[in-house]
Amino acid sequence: MLQERMTVSNHERRARMRRAMEAGRLDALVLRLPENVLLLSGHWPMIGAAWLVFPLEGEATCLVPRCYEDEVAGSLEECGASFYAFGSTDAPAPMGLVAGSLKELAQGRGWKRIGYEGNFEVSAPSWNAAEAMVPAATTLSLLQTVFDGAELVDVTSLLTRERLTKTAYEVGRLAIASEISCFAMEAFEAAVDVGISGVELAAIAEQAAMVKGTGYRGSVRVRGFAQVTTGAAETAKAHRPNIISTARTMEDGDLAVLELGLVADGYWADRTRVGVAGTPREEQVRIFETVRKAQEAAVATIRHGALARDVDEAARSVIRDAGYGASFPHITGHGLGFGYHEAAPILGPHSRDVLEEGMLTSVEPGIYTLEFGGCRIEDDVVVTATGQQVLGPFRKTLT
Amino acid sequence: MLQERMTVSNHERRARMRRAMEAGRLDALVLRLPENVLLLSGHWPMIGAAWLVFPLEGEATCLVPRCYEDEVAGSLEECGASFYAFGSTDAPAPMGLVAGSLKELAQGRGWKRIGYEGNFEVSAPSWNAAEAMVPAATTLSLLQTVFDGAELVDVTSLLTRERLTKTAYEVGRLAIASEISCFAMEAFEAAVDVGISGVELAAIAEQAAMVKGTGYRGSVRVRGFAQVTTGAAETAKAHRPNIISTARTMEDGDLAVLELGLVADGYWADRTRVGVAGTPREEQVRIFETVRKAQEAAVATIRHGALARDVDEAARSVIRDAGYGASFPHITGHGLGFGYHEAAPILGPHSRDVLEEGMLTSVEPGIYTLEFGGCRIEDDVVVTATGQQVLGPFRKTLT
Repeated sequence: MLQERMTVSNHERRARMRRAMEAGRLDALVLRLPENVLLLSGHWPMIGAAWLVFPLEGEATCLVPRCYEDEVAGSLEECGASFYAFGSTDAPAPMGLVAGSLKELAQGRGWKRIGYEGNFEVSAPSWNAAEAMVPAATTLSLLQTVFDGAELVDVTSLLTRERLTKTAYEVGRLAIASEISCFAMEAFEAAVDVGISGVELAAIAEQAAMVKGTGYRGSVRVRGFAQVTTGAAETAKAHRPNIISTARTMEDGDLAVLELGLVADGYWADRTRVGVAGTPREEQVRIFETVRKAQEAAVATIRHGALARDVDEAARSVIRDAGYGASFPHITGHGLGFGYHEAAPILGPHSRDVLEEGMLTSVEPGIYTLEFGGCRIEDDVVVTATGQQVLGPFRKTLT
Repeated sequence: MLQERMTVSNHERRARMRRAMEAGRLDALVLRLPENVLLLSGHWPMIGAAWLVFPLEGEATCLVPRCYEDEVAGSLEECGASFYAFGSTDAPAPMGLVAGSLKELAQGRGWKRIGYEGNFEVSAPSWNAAEAMVPAATTLSLLQTVFDGAELVDVTSLLTRERLTKTAYEVGRLAIASEISCFAMEAFEAAVDVGISGVELAAIAEQAAMVKGTGYRGSVRVRGFAQVTTGAAETAKAHRPNIISTARTMEDGDLAVLELGLVADGYWADRTRVGVAGTPREEQVRIFETVRKAQEAAVATIRHGALARDVDEAARSVIRDAGYGASFPHITGHGLGFGYHEAAPILGPHSRDVLEEGMLTSVEPGIYTLEFGGCRIEDDVVVTATGQQVLGPFRKTLT
């Protein structure tokens, strides 16, 4: 079943994966995580109930709950679909149906080594996000029964490595996610004011992402995850990996920091902007300008072959030279794309990563002081052969 | 470190778990999933980086990233805290620090059998929800290294079984989540009108949950996950496990179905209400009234000792008698509490579950027709010794 809706194809991704499978002597992959089903089939599962069988030779097949027949039809690329009953009172146990379909697909193929997702300890949720479905012992046991005699290989590292560099098609999809994130940042900036709370600002940003993002350049399933801190005490701690938005209301001169994860049909953006209620103090403007210069200095050094630690140093030296070195406790950036965060590249002082064309990294230096508050600017940047491309460019202003 | 903020304790939960551990000959549990850390320690981790060591004898200890020292202090109950560096550029690899702490805690305790979470294929996300952290091969390998010589036991079934019946403390917390869900349903009902879209209604419901829920009866981290279908074609399929909210705008006589998952500090609610734009048709009113009666009939049969399939039949017979039997394809309800859905009880025609005091189940019959659209009403109901308690009662009206 060839995908017809998209004009551009992600054939490159599947060709690359098959080369990697050949090098790893893998006859087939059997994948469940929505992020990896998307990677190789083009279909972002509604929940974690879709299974992708991706053989080295021959067409891939996606096993999909029958109730999602309409959704899957338009999205599969170079991949057949097979449906199983799901969710109604008369449907048999889904795992039994899946096992039967897998056995049929493997029939007479002589697969000796089969890859499975054994070690994704951090996983991107589906669009609804209220439930993450992840392969564990039940899945592994099903694979052992179905592929009795074949060797099961944990391909977590292989998938992680292959996902590191994005194809042209994927960069196009990731750009859409970053462009949608601008709607959220715009709504946030417009709403920052004396009297509004972090939790209200977070809700406004998420609402803008969902309402303006749905339908944007064909986007169907969009969701923002906003975390907004306000005032010195909260924003000084806004460098932590997860932040609580509170009902505290903003006062004149307070900073507000928006940390935003955003997913559009399975492709992720990660952005940060800062706003101020009323009039910023002189020192806040100086901090903001330092962060802006640091961020732009780091972006400017990004190109194929650059050392990740040099990109970090480009940002860190601007902040150090301005006298805020001790107030920048975190790394300058991290990979992302099929999730809010990916394991590489890491733009940090101890990183040994070398940037390659097609990598996507956040660039997000920050300064956090207890007296004036915290401040970070974050964009997502694609490494190109000669330089870099910022996805969804958006203004960097304090007010 | 005894928890001081809450006046009511969940000591009952830990006492029960220790009895179950004794029966299962388990010397300790080592847990990572946020939902299970919450269950036994009272602390709902910010992300999946907290580890709970819960021994049969002696005090439990929660290993927490140091950057969350403030958040954990107020929430741990009958549980010590131990902190490790996390997230800054000079922090060593967290898994090494965790391994060291676990070794220290196990020192001289002679633990022979240690439980771990080996098979949660569906997992509740943390509040941010953009990333689910789940134990996989890395965690298991760390446990094998640390507890060299001890037997590692997958305690997924034990935890699932123990979670089935809620303690009085937990029912109190779950009631808060259901009460907050009323803010979302109220905002949804007020906004349903000609010209509004499903995605706008979903955003409005989520905004109300987050903004009005934060601070409500002490709630700190609240998030709604809304799915809204509108019009006959969309709502006729609103019985599927996950639904796409679209930009389609409502027309006169369209139904809108709000499916809402909601988490308040780790405790979940699952609600559904229906609204109509403009004037409902006679048949829509008849369908709605049938669903309302079916839902109330099912709720009325719930009590300790009732058969789950009889509760289902109470709803199903009302719908069948009204002539819509073929238009109710799904079960009447499912367990929930520490997640949006839990594996038991299942209120369905083939269920063998027997209701027990303390179980929490959704009750959500529906009728779905292509001509008039779909309709479902859903509340969360606790089983009591003599009857039942609907958490967060909310009106059931079509307009």
